[in-house]
Amino acid sequence: MKLSDITSPADLRGLSNQELEALAEDIRAAIIRTVAQNGGHLASNLGVVELTLALHRALDCPRDQIVFDVGHQCYAHKILTGRYSRFSSLRTLDGLCGFPRREESEYDAYDTGHASTAISAAVGLARARDLAGGSQRVVAVVGDGALTGGMCYEALNDVGSRKTAMMIVLNDNGMSISRNVGALSAQLTRLRVSRGWLGMKKNISGVLRRLPGGTVIHRAIQGTKNHLRSLLVRERFFTALGFRYFGPIDGHDIQAMERVFLRLKDLDEPVVVHVATRKGAGFSQAEEKPEKYHGVAPFIMDNGKTRGSDGPSMGKLAGTYVTELAEKDPRICVVTAAMTDSTGFGAFARQYPQRLFDVGIAEEHAVTLCAGMAAGGMRPFAAIYESFLQRAYDQITEDVCLQKLPVCLLMDRAGLGGEDGATHHGLFGVGMLRGIPHMTVLAPRCPEETRGMIDWFLTQEGPAAIRYPRCVPETEQPYAGFSLGRWETLRAGKDGAILAYSVILTECLAAAEMLETNGLSLSVINASTVWPLDMDTLRRLDQKGTPVITVEEHALSCGFGSAVAECCAREGLRPPIRMLGLPNEFIPHGSRGELLRRYGLDKESIARQVEGAIKK
Amino acid sequence: MKLSDITSPADLRGLSNQELEALAEDIRAAIIRTVAQNGGHLASNLGVVELTLALHRALDCPRDQIVFDVGHQCYAHKILTGRYSRFSSLRTLDGLCGFPRREESEYDAYDTGHASTAISAAVGLARARDLAGGSQRVVAVVGDGALTGGMCYEALNDVGSRKTAMMIVLNDNGMSISRNVGALSAQLTRLRVSRGWLGMKKNISGVLRRLPGGTVIHRAIQGTKNHLRSLLVRERFFTALGFRYFGPIDGHDIQAMERVFLRLKDLDEPVVVHVATRKGAGFSQAEEKPEKYHGVAPFIMDNGKTRGSDGPSMGKLAGTYVTELAEKDPRICVVTAAMTDSTGFGAFARQYPQRLFDVGIAEEHAVTLCAGMAAGGMRPFAAIYESFLQRAYDQITEDVCLQKLPVCLLMDRAGLGGEDGATHHGLFGVGMLRGIPHMTVLAPRCPEETRGMIDWFLTQEGPAAIRYPRCVPETEQPYAGFSLGRWETLRAGKDGAILAYSVILTECLAAAEMLETNGLSLSVINASTVWPLDMDTLRRLDQKGTPVITVEEHALSCGFGSAVAECCAREGLRPPIRMLGLPNEFIPHGSRGELLRRYGLDKESIARQVEGAIKK
Repeated sequence: MKLSDITSPADLRGLSNQELEALAEDIRAAIIRTVAQNGGHLASNLGVVELTLALHRALDCPRDQIVFDVGHQCYAHKILTGRYSRFSSLRTLDGLCGFPRREESEYDAYDTGHASTAISAAVGLARARDLAGGSQRVVAVVGDGALTGGMCYEALNDVGSRKTAMMIVLNDNGMSISRNVGALSAQLTRLRVSRGWLGMKKNISGVLRRLPGGTVIHRAIQGTKNHLRSLLVRERFFTALGFRYFGPIDGHDIQAMERVFLRLKDLDEPVVVHVATRKGAGFSQAEEKPEKYHGVAPFIMDNGKTRGSDGPSMGKLAGTYVTELAEKDPRICVVTAAMTDSTGFGAFARQYPQRLFDVGIAEEHAVTLCAGMAAGGMRPFAAIYESFLQRAYDQITEDVCLQKLPVCLLMDRAGLGGEDGATHHGLFGVGMLRGIPHMTVLAPRCPEETRGMIDWFLTQEGPAAIRYPRCVPETEQPYAGFSLGRWETLRAGKDGAILAYSVILTECLAAAEMLETNGLSLSVINASTVWPLDMDTLRRLDQKGTPVITVEEHALSCGFGSAVAECCAREGLRPPIRMLGLPNEFIPHGSRGELLRRYGLDKESIARQVEGAIKK
Repeated sequence: MKLSDITSPADLRGLSNQELEALAEDIRAAIIRTVAQNGGHLASNLGVVELTLALHRALDCPRDQIVFDVGHQCYAHKILTGRYSRFSSLRTLDGLCGFPRREESEYDAYDTGHASTAISAAVGLARARDLAGGSQRVVAVVGDGALTGGMCYEALNDVGSRKTAMMIVLNDNGMSISRNVGALSAQLTRLRVSRGWLGMKKNISGVLRRLPGGTVIHRAIQGTKNHLRSLLVRERFFTALGFRYFGPIDGHDIQAMERVFLRLKDLDEPVVVHVATRKGAGFSQAEEKPEKYHGVAPFIMDNGKTRGSDGPSMGKLAGTYVTELAEKDPRICVVTAAMTDSTGFGAFARQYPQRLFDVGIAEEHAVTLCAGMAAGGMRPFAAIYESFLQRAYDQITEDVCLQKLPVCLLMDRAGLGGEDGATHHGLFGVGMLRGIPHMTVLAPRCPEETRGMIDWFLTQEGPAAIRYPRCVPETEQPYAGFSLGRWETLRAGKDGAILAYSVILTECLAAAEMLETNGLSLSVINASTVWPLDMDTLRRLDQKGTPVITVEEHALSCGFGSAVAECCAREGLRPPIRMLGLPNEFIPHGSRGELLRRYGLDKESIARQVEGAIKK
């Protein structure tokens, strides 16, 4: 059976185990080929190929519903649900999304992108089913990393107390996105690394082959005396919460998993099936360094090396600087949420292991932990991707800002996130933060300015957020120092003023150059203190009647341009204001360049719109 | 020893047990007296009088630090830390806050108000201590209700994995704010209601009196064979997470608790002390109905009856209407977060127990559960106080709005929350929501309009938020029907237009009346579709050059007025705009009337400012 012949999971029905295993290899090859070309999530997707096959053999989708937590493990699912022919378009503009999307296929039961939501969503689907008298099965596939998120616990507690019938497949790959975090994970790791584990796996398979009953599987595992203790820790956790618990099952044995799923899928109570997988399975580089191959840029298949250079990122540069400062400033400490390396704090972690706290996928706790440390006299930095920091909005408000505590939010991946798409862009951060009293929102135009902002943060007593994109912005203008609340004129002109911040300044400066040749002379102002605004500059522009054009890689609603309009109105200033930015929509995946063009934020579009605004 | 003689916890040192018990009664009397006068949290504060005495006997505050989860149990703590003389000012303007406030006393180690943050904050304080080489003790006092919040689990997981030395006092009063929710709670309840419990309590006390060692206490409890099973559930949960676990201890036995705290306070590892208290202890009405006496309005001490009438609330009226509709519309279901009665959905819960899901203090899960149910074809209503809904900002964005799912957020207590203060006002809701694509933000001016909005929600396919205050707004103008996106002119005038929404319209109409006598004729427009704006109306006002004055019981930054300024700028409209609202600060506690006056939002202040804006 060729992959191209699979138009729906029904086509898997008649296949022998040998054919299924061959198919697994084909899926794996397709994933490696496509990710090598387009970039994407590699290790997590390679880990669940057999699991996905087993699920689709045992279930009857799309009637039955699978919710993939985070969604970064849905490639095999997409390939098996009629999307193989479009799979090479993965993560490209107007192509397949790298995450489940209901609008893309009826097989995608629920959209995900942020971690730890699947159990909540699945119990919602299950309760809707029960209220409507339906009988479809609902399965949540959750990685052990996502289990550190508090939402999972809230959901488990609720499911267990109502005994809603649903299945949770705990995909235990022995790691979170980054390293294993948390007390429960530690217990599990102890089990996995021990030699006995492999032997036990064989035991289980053997038992499964002879005896189909779930409770028997259960007993067989309990019988492997050596591991009783470690296993019970996890098992007790789930049973205490009201779940039936089965496993661990070998997550690369399709038959074994299928048999268990068939046995359990119609249980009238909540059940956890613990499946052990190897992240990156089948691609040696990824198996060896699953963390490195979690989310990857396009790479060369033979050796796994990234095409083009890895290069520096704003996060890495910020991380390096904070590490430098930490030597002399003992108040500095860092909190990350399962992304220590990706946010550029790997070196800090190695140099100051006692001062870096990776709390797992737990942004809420991360921010309040920072607040607590700040209340205790420290100067904590929380390094978290902007879109994931959304989860800590309440904690930023009620813990950090209410007490005016000196916590620095380092918001990485601000602006268009590119190929990961809607759930990963950082387009709401300014709006999320600027309404909160005491918050200062900053956005550097270059690495030097990031350093200036960090220096400033350490001299004062309140909270701050520093938003930066992955890429390192390049502007020709030499860095002249950061001064809070004072915007910097990068280019002087008399016909209008472009106010912008962060990397989009590059496009704005280029647009101003282009307009110069059309005889229009534009100022370009670096509004790196995004909030509060530099009212002196706005007043000056208003007095001269200069048209103001705000440009931002951020949603227009509640963004920087909105702040300019609001504050001008509040102060009785009435300069003509034109706002450029992203529309009030969820922006899909695509390269940053493509998205800038589509939404009118490349230099040509900016020039055209600025000209229109001035000549109006 | 009189209460007035206690100026700091040090004054408790020399007291005999008898004197301490007498003091406990005095504290209880002071709490009942003050809450009867000022309103406040009664049952939770009465439950922890002895616990607070024992903690302050065993610890050395303010050097040692206590973090009170939620903070609604800090009255005894305030009385014992030099604030007895000001205690009668509790919850009044410029008086003591009903929650811990660092700015109020050095004994308040950390500000709280929302649930489930204390463990995160305490571990932050403990880690700051460890990094600075300090030796003070850090204690988090957490109610069992707050344990349903996922943040607690995130924090426990982190504390346990790093083995940070700190103490968690689990104040188990057998209930959350509302009824007991969740699988773990159920296990605990089973223990408490059984007859053997009281006998065991005596056993423990007996053992404690004879044998001071903590491990002995432990063994004694384990020895009470009958309860081994139930106890182990909770114990295993904490030990699996890496904690030492002691208890349960009688939470009304000062000596027993003090002895345990003294024994454990210098353990170099994380420890949980499980203390069993009776919510409302010492006030019979509150012991019988602790839920009713959780947070209360001023009442008559003899019989516990509320002064004035309980009266209807917007929440109750909304709840009644949704309950009516549920009979004919099987898609309707409701999710609450430990506040089913307070949000007005008690009747729904009784009538449709299968369609109401009280998930405990777990707003994140609550919202994603709604999203899942909506994806499954239901029309869920999430009834949650506005300030608590902040915790689900990410879920509203990524689960509800990204998928454009028909979830209705019923945001109760929008606007000034009154005496509970900064953490309970609903002053950021419009800003939080209007930046999210696909979200519609509504605010009714009267109960009839709420019903119209609910009707509208059920006819369409997207998300919506309906924000309303506790009180039922009164306007003379008859209700003329709700039409999405079309603002209603309540009063016509030619000199300017007041745009406002929700209950503050009453003040605006009165202000307009007052200005009429000054010869100024103002329109008053009901902007009940707060977002998206009614651009037709704004265009009409702009064409006539009518000055626009926006008035809102909401923070100015990112509020409705800000939206008007933003959208006018985006559409090239340039009417003169003046914005009235709350400044960009955390607003303290006080009665709504007092706060409106202080911040210039009572009718006189509005009239004055409107006049100023027009005549300028």
